[in-house]
Amino acid sequence: MDRETLHNSLTDPAIASMNLLNEIADKYPRAISMAAGRPYEEFFDVKLIHEYLDAFCDHLRRDRGMDEAGVTRTLFQYGTTKGVIGELVARHLAEDEDIHIDPASVVVTVGFQEGIFLVLRALRASDRDVLLASAPTYVGLMGAALLTEMPVWPVRSTEHGIDTGHLLEQVKVARERGLRVRGCYLTPNFANPTGVSLDLATRHRLLEIAEATGLLLLEDNAYGLFGEERLPALKALDQTKCVVYLGSFAKSGMPGARVGYVVADQPLTPSSPGGDDPGGFADELSKLKGMLTVNTSPIAQAVIGGKLLMHDNSLARANAREAAVYRRNLGHTLDALTRRLGACPGVTWNSPTGGFFITVTVPFAVDDALLEHAARDFGVLFTPMHHFYGGFDSGACGINQLRLSISLLTPELIEEGVSRLAALISSRPADPR
Amino acid sequence: MDRETLHNSLTDPAIASMNLLNEIADKYPRAISMAAGRPYEEFFDVKLIHEYLDAFCDHLRRDRGMDEAGVTRTLFQYGTTKGVIGELVARHLAEDEDIHIDPASVVVTVGFQEGIFLVLRALRASDRDVLLASAPTYVGLMGAALLTEMPVWPVRSTEHGIDTGHLLEQVKVARERGLRVRGCYLTPNFANPTGVSLDLATRHRLLEIAEATGLLLLEDNAYGLFGEERLPALKALDQTKCVVYLGSFAKSGMPGARVGYVVADQPLTPSSPGGDDPGGFADELSKLKGMLTVNTSPIAQAVIGGKLLMHDNSLARANAREAAVYRRNLGHTLDALTRRLGACPGVTWNSPTGGFFITVTVPFAVDDALLEHAARDFGVLFTPMHHFYGGFDSGACGINQLRLSISLLTPELIEEGVSRLAALISSRPADPR
Repeated sequence: MDRETLHNSLTDPAIASMNLLNEIADKYPRAISMAAGRPYEEFFDVKLIHEYLDAFCDHLRRDRGMDEAGVTRTLFQYGTTKGVIGELVARHLAEDEDIHIDPASVVVTVGFQEGIFLVLRALRASDRDVLLASAPTYVGLMGAALLTEMPVWPVRSTEHGIDTGHLLEQVKVARERGLRVRGCYLTPNFANPTGVSLDLATRHRLLEIAEATGLLLLEDNAYGLFGEERLPALKALDQTKCVVYLGSFAKSGMPGARVGYVVADQPLTPSSPGGDDPGGFADELSKLKGMLTVNTSPIAQAVIGGKLLMHDNSLARANAREAAVYRRNLGHTLDALTRRLGACPGVTWNSPTGGFFITVTVPFAVDDALLEHAARDFGVLFTPMHHFYGGFDSGACGINQLRLSISLLTPELIEEGVSRLAALISSRPADPR
Repeated sequence: MDRETLHNSLTDPAIASMNLLNEIADKYPRAISMAAGRPYEEFFDVKLIHEYLDAFCDHLRRDRGMDEAGVTRTLFQYGTTKGVIGELVARHLAEDEDIHIDPASVVVTVGFQEGIFLVLRALRASDRDVLLASAPTYVGLMGAALLTEMPVWPVRSTEHGIDTGHLLEQVKVARERGLRVRGCYLTPNFANPTGVSLDLATRHRLLEIAEATGLLLLEDNAYGLFGEERLPALKALDQTKCVVYLGSFAKSGMPGARVGYVVADQPLTPSSPGGDDPGGFADELSKLKGMLTVNTSPIAQAVIGGKLLMHDNSLARANAREAAVYRRNLGHTLDALTRRLGACPGVTWNSPTGGFFITVTVPFAVDDALLEHAARDFGVLFTPMHHFYGGFDSGACGINQLRLSISLLTPELIEEGVSRLAALISSRPADPR
């Protein structure tokens, strides 16, 4: 079989570079990883999976009036494409996010990743379709864009997040070229990779722009629960249904369930005036999901559903211990950076108030060769920021930033990791300007 | 949102027609369904899910030497893209199918459906790519083809399955037109929808054709375990790695786990002579899966893995009771057809020796209006065969066949269902020739 004949997503530099990162991590298993964005593991316990399953089965019996055959059928058999926990998801969103939606607008997916694929597959209908995304951006967005052959145009970020002026400009340029801007992807809360959150004024401004230009906002909120101050999600402020909300339980539930969801309450225009109600965007996504994965495993949904039920639908309460760990780790890391690198010329970092990530700026380019050098000679791993620009049409710039992840560490590992990072940074001359 | 601007898979007649079938079934819940191809439910028991999970955790401790942190990490955390039960899948294939493969060539997927999507996504690289499939064909194949915009050319079937002469002709025609034939999809054992199995000579002939023409065979074997006589899978006979094997645990494990897999042991040609080993086709599918669903839920995999472990990797043994039910139901249905319709002019049916489906031919066209009439006025549901031709480029023909499914029924329901079907058929005049 000749690789040249396979789909071009397989030879895209963005994908090759992510594989390279994994290879480096595998090659230096003793390096302290400030690269992995995985959730904290100390509270994992297999017993919980059994308890969650039981809690969900009890819910089916008690709240949905199912007999034992109904319960087993729900877990074992093929299920409805939209999923069996849409109502619990809606209650969680009301409880934790002040987002109030009809459960019928929820499509439960195989993680965020299937959700974004479905949205882009629906929206990429012709060569004229393009997507905007705040740059740098999450690699999962790039993956879904590659699979659907959706071009992604970058929207610049400032230290406060997406540059709304540039967003308007990109919409204008695209439309002048006869292109259809199908949406703008962004993560308003503690974004991966930058850690940046949008302030309230920017959130309102984004919604104004969306309403004025007919732009769809694709809101990713994987990290929203993990912050000191919690600002409203775009979807909570959305009066005109211009926000498609992409939810993930990977950080707030557990990654191993692979359960996420899309809230897509956009009404569809009837094809003829006075024609049948065509349902909403969620119904269209559900049709695509039927062709892609049939339905999300009801067993996996039951695990997440049970966790929701055991915490009265609040993942904020369910994650109180985890959120405390992440806040502690974030504080420790920022503190260690100040102590170890505060006096180092040209080295700066941002100070997110939540989430998993910190952006560190250094006075030299951070490429993959530097990462390998760091892993081999200094025993520390991070993520070169250029990976999060890799898929943009405009190509990667020379990026002198790196992403630190704090989620999987202990205070001791953070202290040692930052110390090693400081040794690496101090050993490098600044690039000539 | 304007549906006209969404991806054209959403308005494809094949998808619309499948939704219509579900609507009719929902509208007449008291009709006896000889339409649903779902597995038998009597042996479902939630306790089993707990036991399977425990068995898999024991396996991680005992056979893979994991400590408790390793076990919980395997179930809770993100996992390797190819999955955590590849080795158990390989042992099952050796045990039940006499297929011997390297576990590294297995990609565990979110059911068959994600598997076929990944294969078609990899193979559909340009407008020149087309796929062949034996007609009629499984609707899931059509769904994946729509999502990847892969044109599907039909290959005619005889009562013994795929017409190898027509297969050769289609390959020739496509190549004369400058197209690349990326593969031929087929289900050699008890195909959905026809119930037909290929004889051994046809299997060998297919492999000869594949080797001679460089054609990739995409083998779906969802029903192979459920037959009296079990012929070797194409993959068991495959000497030259021209078969990609698509496995499903929906019928042999449980639908609710949504776990399947692809065996893709095709080596890739190095891009330069003497270049690095580029890995195999499974590695390419794994990269695509990383962009689509990240990995299959390890909890869902653990459920299937546990079932395998509790039956010494044999799903034939694990399904002994189910297989007996399906054989009983098949026998009852064929017997009832003979008693009720044996003397009815122009009505014939095939006699599969396994699987879930029977093809009934009648002397009039079977369209969706007839199905609704059957549901409303006779209280019986079946699947008009034209649905399984819907996605072919050549369009649906006027089809005077229907599919009966036997998997979910009891002898009493079969007797009553066939009786109602006979009443419907007897009430219809034959179409004029």
